[in-house]
Amino acid sequence: MSTSPQESVRRQNLAALLRYVHVRGATSRAELTTRLGLNRSTIGALTADLATAGLIDEGVPHETGRAGRPSIVVTPRSSSVYGYALSLELDRLRAARIGLGGKVLDTRTAERPPGPDTAPTVRALAALVAGMHATAPAGAMFVGSAIAVSASVRHHLGWTDETIASPLASALAPHLGARSPIVGGLADLAALAEHTRGAATGADNVIFVHGDAGISAGIIAGGRRITGYGGHGGEVGHMVVNPGGRLCGCGSRGCWEAEIGERPLLRLAGRPVPTAGAAVVTAVQHARGGDPDALAAVLHAADWLGFGVANLVNIFNPTVVVFGGTLRELYLIAPAPVHRRLESMALAACRDHVALHTPDLGDDAPLVGAAELAFESLLADPLSR
Amino acid sequence: MSTSPQESVRRQNLAALLRYVHVRGATSRAELTTRLGLNRSTIGALTADLATAGLIDEGVPHETGRAGRPSIVVTPRSSSVYGYALSLELDRLRAARIGLGGKVLDTRTAERPPGPDTAPTVRALAALVAGMHATAPAGAMFVGSAIAVSASVRHHLGWTDETIASPLASALAPHLGARSPIVGGLADLAALAEHTRGAATGADNVIFVHGDAGISAGIIAGGRRITGYGGHGGEVGHMVVNPGGRLCGCGSRGCWEAEIGERPLLRLAGRPVPTAGAAVVTAVQHARGGDPDALAAVLHAADWLGFGVANLVNIFNPTVVVFGGTLRELYLIAPAPVHRRLESMALAACRDHVALHTPDLGDDAPLVGAAELAFESLLADPLSR
Repeated sequence: MSTSPQESVRRQNLAALLRYVHVRGATSRAELTTRLGLNRSTIGALTADLATAGLIDEGVPHETGRAGRPSIVVTPRSSSVYGYALSLELDRLRAARIGLGGKVLDTRTAERPPGPDTAPTVRALAALVAGMHATAPAGAMFVGSAIAVSASVRHHLGWTDETIASPLASALAPHLGARSPIVGGLADLAALAEHTRGAATGADNVIFVHGDAGISAGIIAGGRRITGYGGHGGEVGHMVVNPGGRLCGCGSRGCWEAEIGERPLLRLAGRPVPTAGAAVVTAVQHARGGDPDALAAVLHAADWLGFGVANLVNIFNPTVVVFGGTLRELYLIAPAPVHRRLESMALAACRDHVALHTPDLGDDAPLVGAAELAFESLLADPLSR
Repeated sequence: MSTSPQESVRRQNLAALLRYVHVRGATSRAELTTRLGLNRSTIGALTADLATAGLIDEGVPHETGRAGRPSIVVTPRSSSVYGYALSLELDRLRAARIGLGGKVLDTRTAERPPGPDTAPTVRALAALVAGMHATAPAGAMFVGSAIAVSASVRHHLGWTDETIASPLASALAPHLGARSPIVGGLADLAALAEHTRGAATGADNVIFVHGDAGISAGIIAGGRRITGYGGHGGEVGHMVVNPGGRLCGCGSRGCWEAEIGERPLLRLAGRPVPTAGAAVVTAVQHARGGDPDALAAVLHAADWLGFGVANLVNIFNPTVVVFGGTLRELYLIAPAPVHRRLESMALAACRDHVALHTPDLGDDAPLVGAAELAFESLLADPLSR
């Protein structure tokens, strides 16, 4: 059955309104009227439909101190409309229940079961979700789930999106039903989160560079996620910056991650190299405390961090670069070498409007980004469910 | 006045239909019915409106040899609906009159007047257009103009889009009226052209690497042009690939264009270094003829070409890379080193589906791409003029 033009416009307006309050939070009807370019009676009809569907609340705000009748405020029902967001990293698993509007309602963390087999990891992820699901309020509305997978998991374990998606869907089905989790890259989803509600809000050209055992980037260009043909874009860790440099795990020499990744940093600092990113935080603390080996390693990595960022700035002409994971620590202790390289290597036209940041959402950025994917089908067509 | 939902849907359908025949050429009404998901009477009403507006022709095809009534064929009126496309390079100016459907109707070329002042160049470009405009058929419909500006012009002359756009608009106004020309990057527009009707048709993730005095890239990601915040994205020539390498004009050391640009190539080949790209074609011919210095220079540049392409493939995960300008010659004479670097340096997941090409549209790619910009407002809303 084809949809009438009127119905199609109504659906577009419902989607635009729900997305607006999902991203901006509580909003007055007066503001919605202005922002969406619709008249008051149309806004009233749309909010009534969304309230009936249980997606928003409407209410009169508390005393505003201003004269006149206050405009009714529309609020996303964060506590009763939610998705599950998962994160799969080399050394740990995370899961969160996140409400409409991006509110983190519950989080769980576990170590990743060791070994190259996906089954124990999938079981552990499902257990985290089951634990949260058991305590979710009765009658609350589950809208979808998504998982952020670190590029290091792909490289070090050889797992692909396909090898994770299907067993995870089966493991979650007893709890969540047949709707499969959506898979995304960890840096991609962190970029999406910071772009939607973090350090890069309002910026259409953003690079989120994430460091763990490897380096990868999430890229927003022209306001949209750039992931490449097979979703493998953003493998900036294997951009070769130093042809005479160290051998990388991928077989090339002088890859960016062979200069700024956690393993080379720890090796250069004379530290043992475990698989946990926490060791980098410790090394950075030692550098801050004056340990000369740790400081030399940190300055080396920060210099090369700026080097690679300058390349990316010349390629993408972004306005915001965000440093996440271990790179957050590295940038915070040694911002000067990063800025110096950027100044000397990036073209003025490309770097003139760029700002360097750490994530507003901290370590939660990949989870909040995964939740954006989980909400996507609801936000695209709110009443189709 | 607000537009009714019905009228808004009709305009979207008119735009979709005109864009389809603009990109695909002559198309039967039967195919349009299928491709646009509309019924026969709607298609008939839309094509009648577009025919009345002088944008398309409808006709019965010649004998098809098949039984039954042949479907009426819809053809863009290439000869009487046109835009002007200009190209501003370091050493030459080009201009074309290009018909709806991307048909090149007329082209002109001139040397760029020497010197750092924009005025003589703007006058020369306007003269090329005036010459073509005088011979355009009476009653033909001019829909817009655009200019492709080489990144080398920005770097070597310091000209910006703003310093070119405004005087060019003034110089063209006596001939073309008040509609200002749109400015785009030469590699960006070449990428758009090859994506729309060339070697990258159907590919959503494309890199067009263009070589002249410098190296720049046009990038299509997720089906859309990626140009960055200020339109300066794609400055891949200043991606540093060799930190210990040659000093680049930008002040950095080891930029990609300092390894594969036409000047270093000619210098390494022991040739004088003029400003014209034709000298590179000659050097490549000498290499083909067995000249050892020219061959060594070509192999060196081809090796580094593959090196930088591998970096870009890791960053963008494209399916098509197109080599234009002097890089076309370089790739054609020495494809093996390029493929070898790509195989050894790019991650399998990123390079698995990538194909390397030269431009289907040859040297016309930037002009055909500029024409796409010139047609954009017509294609977005065909009857609004």
